[in-house]
Amino acid sequence: MTAEFSLPVRVYIEDTDAGGIVYYVNYLKYLERARTELMRTFGLERAAVSDAGWNFVVSEVSLSYKEPARLDDQLRATAVISAVGGATVNFHQTVSRDDSVLVAGDIQIACVDRGTGRPTRLDADLRKQLEATLAPTEKVT
Amino acid sequence: MTAEFSLPVRVYIEDTDAGGIVYYVNYLKYLERARTELMRTFGLERAAVSDAGWNFVVSEVSLSYKEPARLDDQLRATAVISAVGGATVNFHQTVSRDDSVLVAGDIQIACVDRGTGRPTRLDADLRKQLEATLAPTEKVT
Amino acid sequence: MTAEFSLPVRVYIEDTDAGGIVYYVNYLKYLERARTELMRTFGLERAAVSDAGWNFVVSEVSLSYKEPARLDDQLRATAVISAVGGATVNFHQTVSRDDSVLVAGDIQIACVDRGTGRPTRLDADLRKQLEATLAPTEKVT
Amino acid sequence: MTAEFSLPVRVYIEDTDAGGIVYYVNYLKYLERARTELMRTFGLERAAVSDAGWNFVVSEVSLSYKEPARLDDQLRATAVISAVGGATVNFHQTVSRDDSVLVAGDIQIACVDRGTGRPTRLDADLRKQLEATLAPTEKVT
Repeated sequence: MTAEFSLPVRVYIEDTDAGGIVYYVNYLKYLERARTELMRTFGLERAAVSDAGWNFVVSEVSLSYKEPARLDDQLRATAVISAVGGATVNFHQTVSRDDSVLVAGDIQIACVDRGTGRPTRLDADLRKQLEATLAPTEKVT
Repeated sequence: MTAEFSLPVRVYIEDTDAGGIVYYVNYLKYLERARTELMRTFGLERAAVSDAGWNFVVSEVSLSYKEPARLDDQLRATAVISAVGGATVNFHQTVSRDDSVLVAGDIQIACVDRGTGRPTRLDADLRKQLEATLAPTEKVT
Repeated sequence: MTAEFSLPVRVYIEDTDAGGIVYYVNYLKYLERARTELMRTFGLERAAVSDAGWNFVVSEVSLSYKEPARLDDQLRATAVISAVGGATVNFHQTVSRDDSVLVAGDIQIACVDRGTGRPTRLDADLRKQLEATLAPTEKVT
Repeated sequence: MTAEFSLPVRVYIEDTDAGGIVYYVNYLKYLERARTELMRTFGLERAAVSDAGWNFVVSEVSLSYKEPARLDDQLRATAVISAVGGATVNFHQTVSRDDSVLVAGDIQIACVDRGTGRPTRLDADLRKQLEATLAPTEKVT
């Protein structure tokens, strides 16, 4: 089962820039909102400031911008888990308007030790849950 | 001695909105940069995340917007301490371009206990230093 | 009829700061989202970048911060029109969590000529609509 | 001649998140400030809102995050032109603290027609200037 999570996003004036379009940096906020809500479906809340010994940080971002969004646009931000490593989770994500993909790319988050900041292995149960969302050929071993 | 602190600020695209002007919310960031640098002159760093038992939070904001700033404008953000209370410090602040004041207003910060979030008295030495910058008639007792 | 508009707001990591709380500047974004949706109920869209000869800009902000919000909090941002002037509209606004008001204050927006940036009278029909939401004693003449 | 442009950046509370570090999205703002100042050395101002028939938009972002920055850190954002295409300019960029590179990556901007939003060829003179900064082996033909 490959489960794509999708979140509606309205463009407010806070998101735009003097070019009259959504400031390209702000799409990353939309993408993170979608990842956050996806992770919430796994019972993971406040993963950036976890009380456990670890938390998640973004380690890689790769995005292509195809078309701009504008003020008041009603968009959708999507997130699907594309790979699960020992200490990392990869997401494929998009922002789209109607049938047009405006922004697409890949984000990797890493599980790090709260004290040292060094990568640390994902909790085994969480890893199992995340892997269960991957299509068979996508599993990373 | 009334000491006005002044910080140069360049307007980048990140600061603007689709109206073609600086997004009004972002002036508060400029004002905070000026307050931060002013407080640094008193040896206060990282006052929002202090390792001491207390930190500063903003408690009151009152601003008037007179003229807009635009992309690439070279501005100045100023901060002067206007009053010192038992647990609060008031600043009068402006953002200006050349001789025009674009935004002016007053910001109050409160010293709060890190654990409880309740107001707590300013450190006596710090208070003395801050009061020393007030004009005689401005002193709060 | 005094109509309070209310919008649910989730706190994401983008909204927080190193103090572990919502960065106080970002409440202004929540408040604007509520005003935007309120104005949309009057048929006003994209009021900051209107194709008409005028648009709205924020002219006054006055806010009190009472309690902090934190990551993942589910908040409500409210907006109610408190006064309508010749070229201005005043809103009373809050951000709350459950029964606690975290932030409260008043925002004034001004109708300005798109070319000159000078204040210009509100469209008469719009003004009538906005005034109709005021309680009788709040009407400004 | 390969010319690296470098801009000092101070971390303010506005840049941080509840994880106690710089919010990863905000490094993109630092990188853009460096690109903006680099382009200014070529006489290009307000390139995102140019009055000419074209402007620049970001088309590709690829970043690796190695170490976090924290409140009050004094950082450097760098930008060097790594390739010049018919309608695109590529930059290699970093954010560093002392001798540590915290974030590194590549950003591509595209020249687009202001009316249609479609890619359009770089101005020939500008292209020549930009290419002159490339090392011989980096020239794209």
